[in-house]
Amino acid sequence: MSTLPVTGLKSRRAVRADLPRLLELLADDDRGRNREAVGSTDPAYAQAFDAIDRDVNRQLLVADLEGRVVGMLQLAFIPGLSRRGAWRAGIEAVRVDSRLRRLGIGRWLIAQALDAARRRGCRMARLNGDKRRAQAHPFHGQPGFAASHEGFKFALEA
Amino acid sequence: MSTLPVTGLKSRRAVRADLPRLLELLADDDRGRNREAVGSTDPAYAQAFDAIDRDVNRQLLVADLEGRVVGMLQLAFIPGLSRRGAWRAGIEAVRVDSRLRRLGIGRWLIAQALDAARRRGCRMARLNGDKRRAQAHPFHGQPGFAASHEGFKFALEA
Repeated sequence: MSTLPVTGLKSRRAVRADLPRLLELLADDDRGRNREAVGSTDPAYAQAFDAIDRDVNRQLLVADLEGRVVGMLQLAFIPGLSRRGAWRAGIEAVRVDSRLRRLGIGRWLIAQALDAARRRGCRMARLNGDKRRAQAHPFHGQPGFAASHEGFKFALEA
Repeated sequence: MSTLPVTGLKSRRAVRADLPRLLELLADDDRGRNREAVGSTDPAYAQAFDAIDRDVNRQLLVADLEGRVVGMLQLAFIPGLSRRGAWRAGIEAVRVDSRLRRLGIGRWLIAQALDAARRRGCRMARLNGDKRRAQAHPFHGQPGFAASHEGFKFALEA
């Protein structure tokens, strides 16, 4: 599952300097195109990056191809009472540069996140994906991954 | 949506002394029955409670009926880059005493959590539920809630 799909690919934590590129990746998507302000200096993005970065139980991981960020995901380590206090991993916001899709980069980056989750002692992982974003489900039908949960979304804005 | 379903019901944050009762609620469920150690002194449960309680972005909410905890849920305030750095709320582990189901207690407690999420500035909420636990989907078909996401689960244990 974690065989390197492209020579020279590395995974690492995102840094503040990656933010403009992360916003490009979020907008490089049919569903994100109209809701992100790419190239924006909107301080809300930097504040959100910092909120994730300073949380010891959250990480933004990127797939770095020889200095170029070509993929990203957001990883959470989640405490819970169930299953005798088991920690779980949550993976979301998986994005891959549209010119480099179908090479396995998303799946590989998810495998790196699962490795990080194992090192942190997580006993389960959950991957949430928008049903309309079919390519964001690289594990559909894969051994070990069960499409077990229904995710309901609710807009809180007036 | 937040009309009180039972006279005398209140919502509040869980405290450490609620833990034995929370474990009863987790086990009072077809899917939880065999995976929890009810009445256990397993320190993993207390550690998990503390991990949630000390995280400023996580809360265990309970429905308290005249001093008796009859329902619970776990709420998270989640930072993210998408939608111009919008915070989202995550709701999970919704449980109601099996003798008091179908009265609207779960739905009411979720409404309390959505109110807390609004006060924290969250712009979206997400509710995840196991597909096999049909009664945990009180918002199926409700206005505003869309069954938009597919949740994949992966066991990390060897």
